[in-house]
Amino acid sequence: MSHAVAAAARRLHAIAHRTPVVTCAAIDAAAGAHVHLKCENFQRVGAFKFRGAYNAISSLPATERARGVVTHSSGNHAQGVALAARLLGTPATIVMPRDAPAVKRRATVGYGARIVDCDARDREDVCAAEIAAHGSVLIHPYDDDRIIAGAGTAAWELFDDVGRLDALFVPVGGGGLSSGTCLAAAERAPGCRVVGVEPEGADDARRSLAAGRIVTLDSVPHTVADGLRTRMIGARNLDVLGRHLAEMVVVTDDEIVAALRLLFERAKLVVEPSGAAALAGLLSGRVTLPAAAHVGVIVSGGNLEPNALARLLA
Amino acid sequence: MSHAVAAAARRLHAIAHRTPVVTCAAIDAAAGAHVHLKCENFQRVGAFKFRGAYNAISSLPATERARGVVTHSSGNHAQGVALAARLLGTPATIVMPRDAPAVKRRATVGYGARIVDCDARDREDVCAAEIAAHGSVLIHPYDDDRIIAGAGTAAWELFDDVGRLDALFVPVGGGGLSSGTCLAAAERAPGCRVVGVEPEGADDARRSLAAGRIVTLDSVPHTVADGLRTRMIGARNLDVLGRHLAEMVVVTDDEIVAALRLLFERAKLVVEPSGAAALAGLLSGRVTLPAAAHVGVIVSGGNLEPNALARLLA
Repeated sequence: MSHAVAAAARRLHAIAHRTPVVTCAAIDAAAGAHVHLKCENFQRVGAFKFRGAYNAISSLPATERARGVVTHSSGNHAQGVALAARLLGTPATIVMPRDAPAVKRRATVGYGARIVDCDARDREDVCAAEIAAHGSVLIHPYDDDRIIAGAGTAAWELFDDVGRLDALFVPVGGGGLSSGTCLAAAERAPGCRVVGVEPEGADDARRSLAAGRIVTLDSVPHTVADGLRTRMIGARNLDVLGRHLAEMVVVTDDEIVAALRLLFERAKLVVEPSGAAALAGLLSGRVTLPAAAHVGVIVSGGNLEPNALARLLA
Repeated sequence: MSHAVAAAARRLHAIAHRTPVVTCAAIDAAAGAHVHLKCENFQRVGAFKFRGAYNAISSLPATERARGVVTHSSGNHAQGVALAARLLGTPATIVMPRDAPAVKRRATVGYGARIVDCDARDREDVCAAEIAAHGSVLIHPYDDDRIIAGAGTAAWELFDDVGRLDALFVPVGGGGLSSGTCLAAAERAPGCRVVGVEPEGADDARRSLAAGRIVTLDSVPHTVADGLRTRMIGARNLDVLGRHLAEMVVVTDDEIVAALRLLFERAKLVVEPSGAAALAGLLSGRVTLPAAAHVGVIVSGGNLEPNALARLLA
């Protein structure tokens, strides 16, 4: 289904931001490579999530779209679905844990979505109840071919802009962005090694790939990278990653914060911890690269409050 | 001398970063206009100053270049001269006040420049002594045609990228960036109104333009925008601004911080207070614009420590 990424890129043209690719001599020096930062922190809603959400909702048949869409998320996926639904004239319902940050709740309401409160553990049940009651169409955060293809358009644009890459680092949460990135690379740059990055303690994708089946973490992992606190990847994601991902690398919270600091101080980019994880994977030195390699890094999002940034970099 | 900007653009090609132009729906909504942010915070050394410094030093005859260059600065100009000199194999001496931030001192040393300490009030005397002793060539921070032309290349690229602009907002410190921007606009977009922005209490350019002569402030002005604390503009700057600038607008520190917050929270850009001043001028509403105007904003630099940012946005 790699042609699905090309179709998604056409669908998102002039609707999603074509985000810039930023380079920074200090980061090149730290990595010992030519680093190309694909800046999805500049994407609409501040993260790559808009791409998949818009691709998914715009792909729905008119009859389904009229019934409205529903998802569960406390973060960037909620905002992505809310904005994409508004642009497409579709009602959107977001099932959101009561303890979601107020700023993300406000942003989601600001895009016109209806919020249904839930407890963190029963979000899927509440979502299922919404679907049963209203016939809404579920927009799953990652285990969905249209979400995967939409997320892959970030890497698609990166290949357009920089051409050859020896490796491409991408953070792995539920696996939507990483599997979309794999599909884009398989189509555009089969020689490019796609490297997935997970925080320590949240390495369910690494374990799943090693086991050849979905491994579920017992509890929500503790990591500064709140966007990567998923307990399991999806079936579609495991399938794509298993076929295309070159390797996984695990990073510590300290490594993520160091990457975030470098992005702030030297590249002048506001990046959330999950968005700094892929760079942390590159800077960890755990992945062997050719000399003078050209390396892509997906900077996945930038939704971070000033106070949170100050605490992280204190 | 507007062709000087074109020549500088050729000289800087593939040496200075071609910085991206970023757009942001939240900023468009706040401004009531289509806003194009020219992101010089991504420029080498983190500010537009590299452009003028490289243009000036690379324009020197070989005999002068061999004698080395000297300037006085506690900020971004120091780093710009130090890096440009290193790239061109020219010795550089920076006369720097003893109370300059340690981080800027380290960066300047890191680029290979020699630092000569001075007190804030005697920097020009110390600089003159260096010239007398070593025959070094002065690279003035702003009152220099090559510095002006180099600084103008940021706007030059902006016109390349976005075409028509109804207005272009630029911060005014010593007047190098603003006069270069005026020359670029005069050549490329004569219908584009160039608007200069100064912080309250640092409005020496506004006063000088009103008086038709250089007005010097009695003391170093108090403003959060440390890059705009100049007491007077230069003679060349006054001449160019007097012929080409459409108008000046003055903004408060609170307005600058509000613009900085918007750039951080919504555009995901790390910007120093001086770099947020031009956007503050646009958002002040003090300049009348046509409906649905396309407006350029020069985001001049991003050198700001995390702690300083946290204090500003607390």
